[in-house]
Amino acid sequence: MEQINFSQHERDVIYQVIHARRDMRHFADGEVSDEVLSRILEAAHAAPSVGYMQPWRFVRIKKDELREALIALVEEEKDKTANQMDERKAEFMRLKIEGIRDCAELIAVVLAPDDGTIFGRRTMPEEMALCSVSCAIENMWLAARAENLGMGWVSFFDPNDVATLLHCPEGSKPIALLCLGPVKAFYDKPMLETEGWRSREDMGAILGENHYPISHIKS
Amino acid sequence: MEQINFSQHERDVIYQVIHARRDMRHFADGEVSDEVLSRILEAAHAAPSVGYMQPWRFVRIKKDELREALIALVEEEKDKTANQMDERKAEFMRLKIEGIRDCAELIAVVLAPDDGTIFGRRTMPEEMALCSVSCAIENMWLAARAENLGMGWVSFFDPNDVATLLHCPEGSKPIALLCLGPVKAFYDKPMLETEGWRSREDMGAILGENHYPISHIKS
Repeated sequence: MEQINFSQHERDVIYQVIHARRDMRHFADGEVSDEVLSRILEAAHAAPSVGYMQPWRFVRIKKDELREALIALVEEEKDKTANQMDERKAEFMRLKIEGIRDCAELIAVVLAPDDGTIFGRRTMPEEMALCSVSCAIENMWLAARAENLGMGWVSFFDPNDVATLLHCPEGSKPIALLCLGPVKAFYDKPMLETEGWRSREDMGAILGENHYPISHIKS
Repeated sequence: MEQINFSQHERDVIYQVIHARRDMRHFADGEVSDEVLSRILEAAHAAPSVGYMQPWRFVRIKKDELREALIALVEEEKDKTANQMDERKAEFMRLKIEGIRDCAELIAVVLAPDDGTIFGRRTMPEEMALCSVSCAIENMWLAARAENLGMGWVSFFDPNDVATLLHCPEGSKPIALLCLGPVKAFYDKPMLETEGWRSREDMGAILGENHYPISHIKS
């Protein structure tokens, strides 16, 4: 393979997609072609993984009754979450938090059972495998945005219930229901910021020098 | 913000960076300017996060003695890993598994203490926060590659020891020592594939339809 040297223009395009990517919950009519979906999944599979485990598994939901069963699990979990929200419950209930019914494609992402890899994960076995799967999802997100498609990560479910529905083997763990498809428009900012749910952190609060960022040390 | 619609050429550039990104362990002389580092960290901070938690914290290692102390922890963990490798120990010892001494910049990434967010993580609290940090790291990796810089994720350490060195608050967890800097060349393939440590999985082994991929169900 030739050594790619990205030009300044290409670099800017890559930053554009990183900054334009959004967690979408509003979807439009339309389909995702097999060709496009294949490119997005290949992007996922190009992710880094600890010890080259490649612990990511994807389940494309094609049956309507399976999507309905997953929707029911998500609705149940949304209610449970709302009931733990206390004073922000009404505000939470007004937010559109997922587009699982409206998106063109629904893809479950599952952490594979531990294969015993020690390389790079002796001290943090589950964490490092999970991080690898998550890098694959971020690749998909950016690939989807590059295709001008929206993607949203739904985590409102009990992983055991999803595992049962998708016939996942023991030791595996579903971590995402990805909603993918055409959208009318992308949010200008993260929806939870626009809706006033939470603010963006300053860089100073997340970056430290030789030391954990000071403002976040609890006294 | 205008709605960006990526062209086919721009889409191809984005796929190029996704496929050209490598976990680098070989670094060359040279520096990373503050301007470039700032763009890479802004890319991290543009990542998605569950409930908009933004649970990522970064510690730029500037003091040589702190880098030396981290190197010592990594060396210790490499030995412990090698000792658990059994028949592949000699092969493992021959691999270059990190470039922590040679890279221009060393950045620790820490999962912030749990802030009590319930939104989207009632059933998987640590998992979802960790996944968010990991998406930020993948953004950095792609941003670094777009800047024609190499990055490597070192996870050979005990997180408690790194937490002590970096004065991390209780409940936080260091998950990565990121090596960043100029490289002579990028690997054509994942180094562990080229070195024969492990093979790339077929797409059929990681993708299922309505069902966890069949070939990975243990009988």
